[in-house]
Amino acid sequence: MNDDTRYRSLCEHLRQTAILESTQATLEWDERTMMPRAAGAYRAEQIGYLAGLIHQRRTAPELGELLERLRESSLAQDPHSAAGCNIHWAWHDYQKQRRLPQRLVEAISKATILGQQAWSQARSNNDFPNFLPHLRTIVELKREQAEALGYEHEPYDALLDQYEPGAKTAEVAEVLSRLRTELVPFVHAITSAKRQAPFEILTRRYPIAAQRAFAIQTTKQMGFDYERGRLDETDHPFCTSLGPHDCRILTRYDEHYFSSAFFGSLHEAGHGMYDQGLPADDFGLPSGSYVSLGIHESQSRLWENSVGRSRPFWKWLYPQAQTAFPAALADVCLDDFHFAVNHVSPSLIRVEADEVTYNLHIVIRFELERELIRGNLQAADLPQAWNDAYEANLGIRPENDAEGVLQDIHWSAGLIGYFPTYTLGNLYAAQFLQTAQHELGDWNGALERGEFSPLLEWLRAQIHRHGRRYRAGELVQRISGRPLESQPLMESLHERFDPLYRL
Amino acid sequence: MNDDTRYRSLCEHLRQTAILESTQATLEWDERTMMPRAAGAYRAEQIGYLAGLIHQRRTAPELGELLERLRESSLAQDPHSAAGCNIHWAWHDYQKQRRLPQRLVEAISKATILGQQAWSQARSNNDFPNFLPHLRTIVELKREQAEALGYEHEPYDALLDQYEPGAKTAEVAEVLSRLRTELVPFVHAITSAKRQAPFEILTRRYPIAAQRAFAIQTTKQMGFDYERGRLDETDHPFCTSLGPHDCRILTRYDEHYFSSAFFGSLHEAGHGMYDQGLPADDFGLPSGSYVSLGIHESQSRLWENSVGRSRPFWKWLYPQAQTAFPAALADVCLDDFHFAVNHVSPSLIRVEADEVTYNLHIVIRFELERELIRGNLQAADLPQAWNDAYEANLGIRPENDAEGVLQDIHWSAGLIGYFPTYTLGNLYAAQFLQTAQHELGDWNGALERGEFSPLLEWLRAQIHRHGRRYRAGELVQRISGRPLESQPLMESLHERFDPLYRL
Repeated sequence: MNDDTRYRSLCEHLRQTAILESTQATLEWDERTMMPRAAGAYRAEQIGYLAGLIHQRRTAPELGELLERLRESSLAQDPHSAAGCNIHWAWHDYQKQRRLPQRLVEAISKATILGQQAWSQARSNNDFPNFLPHLRTIVELKREQAEALGYEHEPYDALLDQYEPGAKTAEVAEVLSRLRTELVPFVHAITSAKRQAPFEILTRRYPIAAQRAFAIQTTKQMGFDYERGRLDETDHPFCTSLGPHDCRILTRYDEHYFSSAFFGSLHEAGHGMYDQGLPADDFGLPSGSYVSLGIHESQSRLWENSVGRSRPFWKWLYPQAQTAFPAALADVCLDDFHFAVNHVSPSLIRVEADEVTYNLHIVIRFELERELIRGNLQAADLPQAWNDAYEANLGIRPENDAEGVLQDIHWSAGLIGYFPTYTLGNLYAAQFLQTAQHELGDWNGALERGEFSPLLEWLRAQIHRHGRRYRAGELVQRISGRPLESQPLMESLHERFDPLYRL
Repeated sequence: MNDDTRYRSLCEHLRQTAILESTQATLEWDERTMMPRAAGAYRAEQIGYLAGLIHQRRTAPELGELLERLRESSLAQDPHSAAGCNIHWAWHDYQKQRRLPQRLVEAISKATILGQQAWSQARSNNDFPNFLPHLRTIVELKREQAEALGYEHEPYDALLDQYEPGAKTAEVAEVLSRLRTELVPFVHAITSAKRQAPFEILTRRYPIAAQRAFAIQTTKQMGFDYERGRLDETDHPFCTSLGPHDCRILTRYDEHYFSSAFFGSLHEAGHGMYDQGLPADDFGLPSGSYVSLGIHESQSRLWENSVGRSRPFWKWLYPQAQTAFPAALADVCLDDFHFAVNHVSPSLIRVEADEVTYNLHIVIRFELERELIRGNLQAADLPQAWNDAYEANLGIRPENDAEGVLQDIHWSAGLIGYFPTYTLGNLYAAQFLQTAQHELGDWNGALERGEFSPLLEWLRAQIHRHGRRYRAGELVQRISGRPLESQPLMESLHERFDPLYRL
């Protein structure tokens, strides 16, 4: 077998694994949108069985043998070529899979299933002590996992790398810390401002059928391709691709809150347009996959916030909104509506937070989970540390653990190292957008005319079409000419919120 | 390994295969209801890949070894016990799979994919000659398949057995021939009757949202369990179970034809209630599977026609129908509506045929395909033979092949031996129902009160809960005390249609 034949075998192996993965994703999408209530137990069996087949393929010795030979070959030399990218990441992923002992994989799987059940009950009953033993076990297992995976500087690096490959804890900590230093006084200035957003507008009655039609119409105009995707309803919105031309986005509707479904749809459509822009012929290969969770999040945040909450966007869309929701919006002027969708107010629950304070929720979680993994913070001391951090950063203190440390599912599901990708997404988006605005010119004019294709084409060319050929850090450097910084995000926030709150 | 351990391994093997089969069914359901237009090619790859995995498991030598030993064991002695049933049918299915050479399986797969494409074009263009070479190839391959599978009396037996295990061509021919002898003059009497059904009622405007709600409300009251199933929309309605508690039924809506969605929903709900009545714990085993296509069809026809087109059923439901469709039905009395849904008229297209003439469409197809497989009829002579048969049996002659021999997809898809199961379903249903009416008593009274659970419980006890423990012929004998006959169906038709048409 020569290297070309080996490389074809590698691609074939990866594509077949992707067939099983995308089939599993289809089962999961159906479970969360369509499946009858009583069918859950068997669906879990189906998903578990496929997970076993996928794991076998990901750790197959013949895959390892192919990769051992290929990484020495000339095909692997240029990491930014399709072949170099595919060999590099396939080897990276294979090694990670092989480094985890079966015993540990099973222990984590069991602990997180039990952990999520216990968390769900504990949150309902505001009962942290009952969740504590599960959390202790999970933190211990994640520390063990970090040791098994290996790291250069600190164990948290190994966990972060699973979601944001190549990111280093110390660098993330530094940029988040700088962000916090600027955000805290900024939030304070906003909350102290005389002028406050007319939030009530958004809580009027918005009939759900009209919300659905408006979300589809808007995301279609933005560029989400409904020939290659669809929008459905679910409890916990997400975006998933079931094939190279099959992107499913989901949202949830609240008849008395406009933003939930609308900005949720823009957010998921942003994720979806990234998936739809990846090289379809390379579906299932690293060269056809997304870079990292942070880069994925940058695409959703960019469309949701930088585009979807901007003044020129609403100058274009607001007449359509008034037509779609005449009863709610007939007496509301564009300025008031735009101010309302940019309402800022410190709150306790992350998923309901506005765009400015959201990042402080993330900084708090990142710092706490890093200390947990370092062993400097004990799980038992989390509630106190959590509440102190909210008081210090947001000036508000949870009255109980249900609205505090128990609010997120992540830790109970073993997702440690995941939270920072949300804010990394905001940071990437802002830094990408500065370059885009500079290169595209007439940014406001285009949005006022509802012309989104220049931006989408730019994102396609700069980010989507590369698949995983560049790491997140490399992409930021290539596009902006600089490493990741907090300044672009802060500048974009000031640009939008200073005039609204007259700061 | 002792026999008990072997039997547990057998069940485990079959259940795991069923996980892949039900996953494949989920992909197919999604393809026909939800999938975005552009996603078809990759979906075919997913389904094809799973088909390969399923075929490997169905023909796995270790399965054969288990079965070789188990069929000699004491567990296999009682064919009506769960173990006996599972060993018997697993061995039966395994042998069939092994008897087909890989070359033949692939040739049939290729010929029927090309055949369906050619058929679809030929039907659009009314161009039988362009379909003819495909049909010739398919008939040749099906004759080869019959030889490979083996048969006692004639090759058609081997094909029929795939859909109606244990049925013999000669016996089916005899009962269908008797049925035809009685149906032809019966249809003539109906078409010559002075009194004709007020069909126009059904072609008024029935808003689709109201049709959907009415179909769900009615099938729910009949006993289809929506906690374990759902109703959706598709082009070519069907019923599929994606798990033991996950039955998906589908229908299609025509705003200007009431019967399409309504009786389609009753039909599919009849299939669905059978699936929902199979032993859920045995899902994936023969003891938890349906007996045959004919028995499956008996359940759908029973609810659609014997229940759903009866006078007492509409005495109960008609007030609800008038509430659901006030504009269409305000001025229509129960008698006229009931007569309309029992409209009979010879027509050229099988899928649009009424309950009485439908069986003649099937008799024609059965006789033609039997002669094709026997080699007594050449594919090239089919159009002439088809048109002559329509004239002889239904008194009407197609003007072209699109409304004649090209109307059905079945032959192009290699489904030879499938058609008779439709009429077997009608025959089984009528024969079962005679016993049920006798045993349950007060049949009309129950329907007039909308009480369906006595009938459903009877079907559960007599048919559903047995899975495949009894063959179709055994079930008929056990339930009615007699072999399959045409008389019960003819009696039930006379009972309903004689008073309507005043015969």
